[in-house]
Parts: sequence; C-alpha cells; structure tokens
Amino acid sequence: MESTLATNASPMIKVGAICGSLRKASYNHGLIRSAIDIAKTSADGMSIEYIDISPLPMLNTDLEIDGKYPPAVEAFRNKILESDCFLFASPEYNYSVTAPLKNAIDWASRPPNVWADKAAAIISAGGGFGGGRSQYILRQSGVYLDLHFINKPEFFLNAFESPPKFDDQGNLIDPDSKERLKSVLLALKAFTLRLQGSS
Amino acid sequence: MESTLATNASPMIKVGAICGSLRKASYNHGLIRSAIDIAKTSADGMSIEYIDISPLPMLNTDLEIDGKYPPAVEAFRNKILESDCFLFASPEYNYSVTAPLKNAIDWASRPPNVWADKAAAIISAGGGFGGGRSQYILRQSGVYLDLHFINKPEFFLNAFESPPKFDDQGNLIDPDSKERLKSVLLALKAFTLRLQGSS
Amino acid sequence: MESTLATNASPMIKVGAICGSLRKASYNHGLIRSAIDIAKTSADGMSIEYIDISPLPMLNTDLEIDGKYPPAVEAFRNKILESDCFLFASPEYNYSVTAPLKNAIDWASRPPNVWADKAAAIISAGGGFGGGRSQYILRQSGVYLDLHFINKPEFFLNAFESPPKFDDQGNLIDPDSKERLKSVLLALKAFTLRLQGSS
Amino acid sequence: MESTLATNASPMIKVGAICGSLRKASYNHGLIRSAIDIAKTSADGMSIEYIDISPLPMLNTDLEIDGKYPPAVEAFRNKILESDCFLFASPEYNYSVTAPLKNAIDWASRPPNVWADKAAAIISAGGGFGGGRSQYILRQSGVYLDLHFINKPEFFLNAFESPPKFDDQGNLIDPDSKERLKSVLLALKAFTLRLQGSS
Repeated sequence: MESTLATNASPMIKVGAICGSLRKASYNHGLIRSAIDIAKTSADGMSIEYIDISPLPMLNTDLEIDGKYPPAVEAFRNKILESDCFLFASPEYNYSVTAPLKNAIDWASRPPNVWADKAAAIISAGGGFGGGRSQYILRQSGVYLDLHFINKPEFFLNAFESPPKFDDQGNLIDPDSKERLKSVLLALKAFTLRLQGSS
Repeated sequence: MESTLATNASPMIKVGAICGSLRKASYNHGLIRSAIDIAKTSADGMSIEYIDISPLPMLNTDLEIDGKYPPAVEAFRNKILESDCFLFASPEYNYSVTAPLKNAIDWASRPPNVWADKAAAIISAGGGFGGGRSQYILRQSGVYLDLHFINKPEFFLNAFESPPKFDDQGNLIDPDSKERLKSVLLALKAFTLRLQGSS
Repeated sequence: MESTLATNASPMIKVGAICGSLRKASYNHGLIRSAIDIAKTSADGMSIEYIDISPLPMLNTDLEIDGKYPPAVEAFRNKILESDCFLFASPEYNYSVTAPLKNAIDWASRPPNVWADKAAAIISAGGGFGGGRSQYILRQSGVYLDLHFINKPEFFLNAFESPPKFDDQGNLIDPDSKERLKSVLLALKAFTLRLQGSS
Repeated sequence: MESTLATNASPMIKVGAICGSLRKASYNHGLIRSAIDIAKTSADGMSIEYIDISPLPMLNTDLEIDGKYPPAVEAFRNKILESDCFLFASPEYNYSVTAPLKNAIDWASRPPNVWADKAAAIISAGGGFGGGRSQYILRQSGVYLDLHFINKPEFFLNAFESPPKFDDQGNLIDPDSKERLKSVLLALKAFTLRLQGSS
C-alpha cells in the first residue's frame, strides 16, 4: 500500500533520449549516458531510455507501402509514441542539426505525427558555441512537430575547454557540467508534468 | 575558328544540381529537370549536371578509414569539386532541410571542404511557403561551408495553387515559373562569373 | 447566482496585444482590432487589451537611472506584468521583426524580465509569406525571454491575395481569416490555462 | 610621383561602420574604434567611417511625406549610399539584433534600397556566444537587402573571459582579438574588391 502511495505521489515519466551523432565515441552520446546515470541516481521520477536511430533508412516516402513503414521505422515510431517527453543530444554540423537526427525527426513526423504535444529538451556538446546553432534549428522544426521545448536552462558544452569535460571513452567527467545537465532534466520533468496537468 | 572565339567570349560554367528529395516524382526533381532544359535551350554559357545523392551512406565519421572516404562519397565529392557553382533544389520537411540534403552537405564539407568559395542558388517547391523555411537554414550552413548564395531572385513555388504547376510526372509546366527559374539561373551564372573575376 | 458560478468556472484571462507596426493603417493593427472584437463576441473567457508601444524611447540602458526606467517604459512594463499571456501582431520588415517590436521586447526583458513564463501567440499580415519569417525570429527571442509560444495554428495572412482581406481602413473583412484568427485565440487561451494549471 | 602610382594601384575603399548599441561604453563601439585604428595603421587601402544611428527616429512610414524622408534619415541614407561596404558591430539582445540596428537597417532599405549589392561583415562582443546569435539574423535580413556578407572569418568575442578584452572605457586591449579583427577587415576589403571587379 505504501509503495502505491509513493508511486502516486511521484509519477514516473518516460524520457526518450535521441543522439544526433552515430559515432561511437561521440561526446553527445556521452551526455546521454550521463543523463541516464543522473536519472537513476539523483533525479527521482524519471526513466530515460536511449532510442537508437542508426537502424533507420534514409527517409524516402516511396518506402511507405500500403500505409506501412519499414520495420525499423515502425519500431522507432513506437518508442517515440510511448515516451512522455524527449531529450535530444544534438551536435552541430555545419551550423545545423545532423542528417541522422533530421532523418529520425522526419520519420516520426509522418502521419500520425508521434511527436505531437510532448515536452522536449536539447543538450549539445562540441567546439565553438558547444553545438548551440543546431538547437535553434531544431526548435524551429519543433513548431511544426508540435513539440514544447523547455526554455531554460539551455545546455551547450564546449568540449575542448579546460578543465577536461570528457574522458577518453567520451564519458562526461566534469562535475559542473553534470550539475547543469541535472538542472535540464529537472526542468524537463517539471515542464512535462505541467503540460500533463499533473504538476 | 569562329566557334572557338565564341566559346572564349562566353565561358561555360559547370553547375552541380542537387535535389534534397529522394522521391522519384518529387516536384523538386522536376525543378532540376526544368533547369537543365532551360540551360540547354535558352541560357547560354551554363551546363547543369544532376548529381545524385541517393547512393551516399548516412554520415558517420567512423566510416572514414586511413583518411579515405567510402567510394560513393569520394565520387560525390569529386563531382562537387569539379563544379563551378551549385543549384540546390531544397524541399522543406518540418520547417528545415531534408536529411538526405544535409547528409550530402556534410559529406562534402569533410576535409578538405569541397564547397568552399563557390556560388550557389536555392530553389524549392512545396506547400505553404513553397519550401521557403528550408532555404534560410541552408543559407546558415553556407556560412560555415563558405558558399556564396545569390540573394535575388529567390525561388519558392507553391506547387498546389492554381494554375497547375506540375504535370502527373512531376514536370514543371507553368510558364511563369519557368521564367522565374530562368532568372535564377542567369543570376547564378552572373554571380559565379563575378566571383571568378570573369564577368 | 448561477451566472456567478459560471463565471468562476470559466476564468477570464488577460491578453496583452502588441503590434509591431506604428503605422495607423497597418494591417497588423487591423488583426488586433479584429481579435479584440472576436474576444468580445465569440471567444468567452478572454479579455484582450491593446498595449501601445509607440511612446517607448529607443532602448539605451544609459536611460536607466538609479535602477528606474523612464516613465513610459515603467507604464509599459506594468501592462506586460499584468497580462496572463500575449498576442503579437508581427509584420515582417527585411525578413525579420520590426524595430519598434524588438524595442518593446527588449525594454520588458530588462530586470526583472516581465515576460517570463507566460504563453504567447503570433499573428502576421503582409505580402509574400504573410509575415512568416518574422515569426521564427520572434520565437528565437522567446527562448531567452522564457515565453511559451503556441505551436498551432500558425497565422500568416497574405494581405494582397484575392478575395480582399482588409477594407480601406485596414479592418479585417475576410470571413475565413477571422475564423483562423479565432482558432489562434482559442489555442492561446487553452495553452495559457494549461500552463497555469487551470485547464 | 611613385606614391601616386602606388595609390592608384591600391584603391581606397570606404567602409561604413554601424554600431547596434547606443550605450556610450558599449563594447561593440569599442570594436569599431579599434577597427578604425587598425585601418589607419595596418590595413592599407581602407577608410572606415563611423556612421551614428542614434539620431534616427523610430521607423514609421507615415513619416515619409511627399516621397521625402526626415532630414536625419536622409543624411543617414546618404552615408550608406556613399559607402563601398559595411562593418556592422552587432550586440545580441534577447537572441537577436538590437532595435536601433534594425531601425537603421529598415530606414536605409526604403526605396531606393541603398544597401543593395554591397559587401558587409559583422563583428560582435558580448557574453555567452559573444553576440553570435544576432549575426545569423542579420544575415537573413541581408538576403532581402541584397548585402553580400563575407563568410570567414567570423568574429564573436566573449567580453567577460580572461584575459581582459576591454579596458574601463570599453577600448579593445586584447592583442589576439585585434589580430582577429584585422583579419575580418582584410577579408572584407578583399571581398569588396572582388565584387567590384577590381581585385
């Protein structure tokens, strides 16, 4: 009985986490691994699942046959549909989002658009602005997708400034960045609950 | 002899044409076919070659081995390198460029960046703004790629307004749109020559 | 007594309406007048107040003396503070927002930022995309301002297409556009209540 | 005699410099002062004139009477017309350009658009991205204005990182930043000459 009460008092929200880079040692993958760890250890009420976008074929609506999507696309779309909100780790390539991320976004937007009316947050690591330019372009897509992005805090991480931010395996090791990442997760959780009318 | 003189007087510029949609009946493919036809029949001094981006794998820098790119990527990069300027047919998906187009852009930007210091123009067909939102995002990537886009005329085509703009095979049939498209090609040619110091 | 209960059940939200054009016959002013009329006659639970931005001086933080803003700025900031949400009528000048609108935005963002955590919608009339390019730039400012824009429906109105959209005094006369405008108001109301936890 | 020849061989280009901040101690003003100094001492062939935008009234086309602009506007437009190219010092307010800068841009775009077909560069100082977000918005306006922006080098300066970048009067004192600023000026000069067919 007590555990039921506890569950009611602190609903568990499902966060779908998507990484725009396919590279194994990607810093942006490292951010998601760190977010998953934070959710398990110090951010109650959130469960973050990494959703792999590498199996998706390049979008071509000629691949939609008899109203069905290819199996890898269907599986991906189901993961999006089951999520309460999203965490995008978005590297910046040529001042915009990556092709794999845009591809995933576009597949899940095909009818019915499974992103619709959910909350989202964006995190980025990279050189220069730390991936920042890609975030505003993703936000513009969000208008059409009907995603509700949190405004604050924004998370950009210049991966090359000292002190070191990542270890050799691309794991986030900088305590300040982990604290900032935790703040993003808490804001995403709060905004998700607020939009669901559960806050 | 006279033909040689004529050739010298009117240098032939090579335009590489890229379509952001992989769909066979894509209106944006139709725009490129129309541009190729216009260049052959009524825009002297330009040769437009369609560069197919469908064979490119999804970008993953883990695919770069010993400083070499996959064969399809090398072939694509050579086509870009040989072009004097570019014509992008850019559909708008979710208020941004398509994944296949971004993928092609990113592959050709890998070192050495083969887009650098060349002129470019963008054309789009679609619903609503006729693809317009994607063009400003492509222009932002162009800052990093070091592409010099013509400013005017811009070409957006709402494919669904009457009179009909395309036939059933996706061929451009609207005379006004063809005239506007020709104006884009002439402006691209002029800007290319100006940047080359040949105008 | 019953009407009192009804009133309680349907809270009245205060919408602050701001027009980016200072021109008297501005179509964007016409959109706001029409919105005010719709709220009075057919959109229960909303009260729209036009907030004039023409008295504001050009922003210069040297005008802030002893932590006080000029009187016209203080008056404007109070109107923003008292509003539950915002309706921006944003014309597009040179592919961006107008200077008077940006000036108003910037004054109200000075500490404490009086836009923070409120809902907003954007409507535009003009040529071409009907003002559309300005809306995405305003949305980008909204990230820093911490405004929560509705995603749908978007409202762009090409003022020059037939049938006529405005009369000679700049009043909206097109029934379809009025219906679309009403849909924006209802979506803004619903999103405001949802964010307030009152829906 | 020889110096005359040398002067002919190295044409002098006129750069009009515009600052988006009206604050006296603005870092962005400091960037322009430094650019003027660099042009005098170490960047041959350029003359930079600061064009003050503070006298301009807020744009309202009702102020245009009998096809004439207010005197302060006419004077400003003449300065723009006489310039070969432009240097914009663009602070970032609320993730966009400032109202005074947008106002100046819009006045000079009124018919005939006196920006048309000229080269330009943008420099920015500030916190965070050093003003970067404003630059891409200014570039988008440039498409309609028909400005040709240099792509590289871009100049963003985080004014608050150590070592100190500015002194108490807002003068640029950081040698590395001065070198980067000089590179921008040389690129602007080269692109201006190239577009003029004089390179």
